[in-house]
Amino acid sequence: MNRQIVLAAHPRGAPQPDDFQLVEGTIPEPGPGQMRVRNLYLSLEAAIRSWLDGTPNYFAPIPLGGVIRGPSIARVEASRMAGYTVGDLVFGLHQWEDYSLSDANTVLLRKLAPNRDFPLSWYAGALGGSGQTAYVGLHRIGQIQSGDTVLVSAAAGATGSMACQIAALRGCRVVGVVGSPEKVSTLQEQMAVDAVLNYREEPDLAAALARACPEGVDVYFDNVGGKMLDAALTAMAGGGRIVGCGMISDYNHAGSPTPLYNLWQVIERQLTMQGFLLYSYLDDVPAAAMQLEQWVKEGRIQVLENIAEDLSVAGVAYSAMMTGTTMGKNLVRVGGAG
Amino acid sequence: MNRQIVLAAHPRGAPQPDDFQLVEGTIPEPGPGQMRVRNLYLSLEAAIRSWLDGTPNYFAPIPLGGVIRGPSIARVEASRMAGYTVGDLVFGLHQWEDYSLSDANTVLLRKLAPNRDFPLSWYAGALGGSGQTAYVGLHRIGQIQSGDTVLVSAAAGATGSMACQIAALRGCRVVGVVGSPEKVSTLQEQMAVDAVLNYREEPDLAAALARACPEGVDVYFDNVGGKMLDAALTAMAGGGRIVGCGMISDYNHAGSPTPLYNLWQVIERQLTMQGFLLYSYLDDVPAAAMQLEQWVKEGRIQVLENIAEDLSVAGVAYSAMMTGTTMGKNLVRVGGAG
Repeated sequence: MNRQIVLAAHPRGAPQPDDFQLVEGTIPEPGPGQMRVRNLYLSLEAAIRSWLDGTPNYFAPIPLGGVIRGPSIARVEASRMAGYTVGDLVFGLHQWEDYSLSDANTVLLRKLAPNRDFPLSWYAGALGGSGQTAYVGLHRIGQIQSGDTVLVSAAAGATGSMACQIAALRGCRVVGVVGSPEKVSTLQEQMAVDAVLNYREEPDLAAALARACPEGVDVYFDNVGGKMLDAALTAMAGGGRIVGCGMISDYNHAGSPTPLYNLWQVIERQLTMQGFLLYSYLDDVPAAAMQLEQWVKEGRIQVLENIAEDLSVAGVAYSAMMTGTTMGKNLVRVGGAG
Repeated sequence: MNRQIVLAAHPRGAPQPDDFQLVEGTIPEPGPGQMRVRNLYLSLEAAIRSWLDGTPNYFAPIPLGGVIRGPSIARVEASRMAGYTVGDLVFGLHQWEDYSLSDANTVLLRKLAPNRDFPLSWYAGALGGSGQTAYVGLHRIGQIQSGDTVLVSAAAGATGSMACQIAALRGCRVVGVVGSPEKVSTLQEQMAVDAVLNYREEPDLAAALARACPEGVDVYFDNVGGKMLDAALTAMAGGGRIVGCGMISDYNHAGSPTPLYNLWQVIERQLTMQGFLLYSYLDDVPAAAMQLEQWVKEGRIQVLENIAEDLSVAGVAYSAMMTGTTMGKNLVRVGGAG
């Protein structure tokens, strides 16, 4: 039996648990060039939200009744694919189910060679895409320098928590923005941030940013977009850089995005705003991965993760993540047989 | 007697002729380190609009009754300033008046060494700041390459008309956007543009841009901001660059800027948007100036300009420019005695 999570309804706004449904499918048999993998951890990612609306973007939309597409850490169970053998650990864009088929066309597919001293789940977050995105975004796009003031939004999230710590390790002054007192406490207690703001408690966010960054923001690592980006535009230092990593404030209502009013600052302050997706910078990933493992091994990076137990709660876990109530990397341990 | 144009009222929206008033002042006497210049041509520039609202930006606001600040081409009449002698031609941020004082603090002040084969006025436009801004913006910020599709807004304006022609000379496919049938005709007849759109005749500007740029826009040279920028964001090619040169669509209502909705494209298409001001790239100006003179001499660039006769009509001319009814570089020949 192959348990699967399918799309029961297109979410309106933030996904709700009822938008997802557990069904029972059959265990797939790999054809020529394919392999069957046993999913171990689902990596819950904001990008999945954009596939739930039934409208095409750079991936096809997931139809009603279709199995949710999402990245996972998995173990090869049966292989008719060259180069992959039973027992290999892999990462790839699979589906929310016990068993998936994978082949040369699987997006993001790569073998994992995890350090056995670390939990395997870290390779979907701090030591995987989240950490690598933070690292590459800060260095390659943001071009951070020691002494820079670096502003990070969604600073208690999977990518944001890594961006804060990486920037601090590079000698930057780090200001994080989060959305709950618990997140403020976590950042203050576990991470070397210089200041943390709770945007929900700041009626004038631009003024709060100006107070927190009196000399201006050299690099803004933006996971949020919308009002946060609009406020950050007014807090940038001349010649500052905005790393466009995500716009999670709009993912639950992509059809009616938040208006921005402060683009004039791009000219007046001579800013550079650059969007990026990690898969365009794969050449940078090996060095990033090595440095991140080193820092984690030395205890200089705290890994924040939130693991939901069992495939059956994937929809619940995803709904919680997309309403902003969780911290760190969100994962589902698939569980079940085997 | 020194005729002067002063601010009679803070404009509401687009400036009106009545917002300006001609008064008679005295001819200034240069103190130590100063010189008196005879203004020959006023260079009408969009930036002046931002000084008329009474609110500070990177320059102090012009008070009611204050003489309008603006760049001019002028001739030195009396000098107590080292390095400048009577008869020198200069460019600098002076005032709308017959005679101005100039000194080492005068913004943009530099000597002109004009080629006598060209009208002097061209050194305020095609061979001055407008042409140099287009050149530096396209090369340094836009990093244009032969074969790129280059989109230019306000394409019949001082900077836009130069950007179109420079990009065409560099082997790019050039698409211009303008706001009147006359401007469409001028671009089609006088300049080597590949396509021209009149945005006022395009109810769905994004769709029109997509039709005009089927392979996407590699470099968007943005003079306009607002709805034009928002539409252009949807027409960019992956990895495209947006050169933020101006946002004239908002200058008449800077306190209530046009909302933008399509910033998500910065991430999805991995765009780079970079604002710039020419004074930050002065090292690039000499090479730009030489190349522009060469092209003009060879007849490969058409100079578009619109010269209003006499200082007394400066307010009328500026109002016309800021309502978008003029083409090319707008100047006022100061006239009067001398």
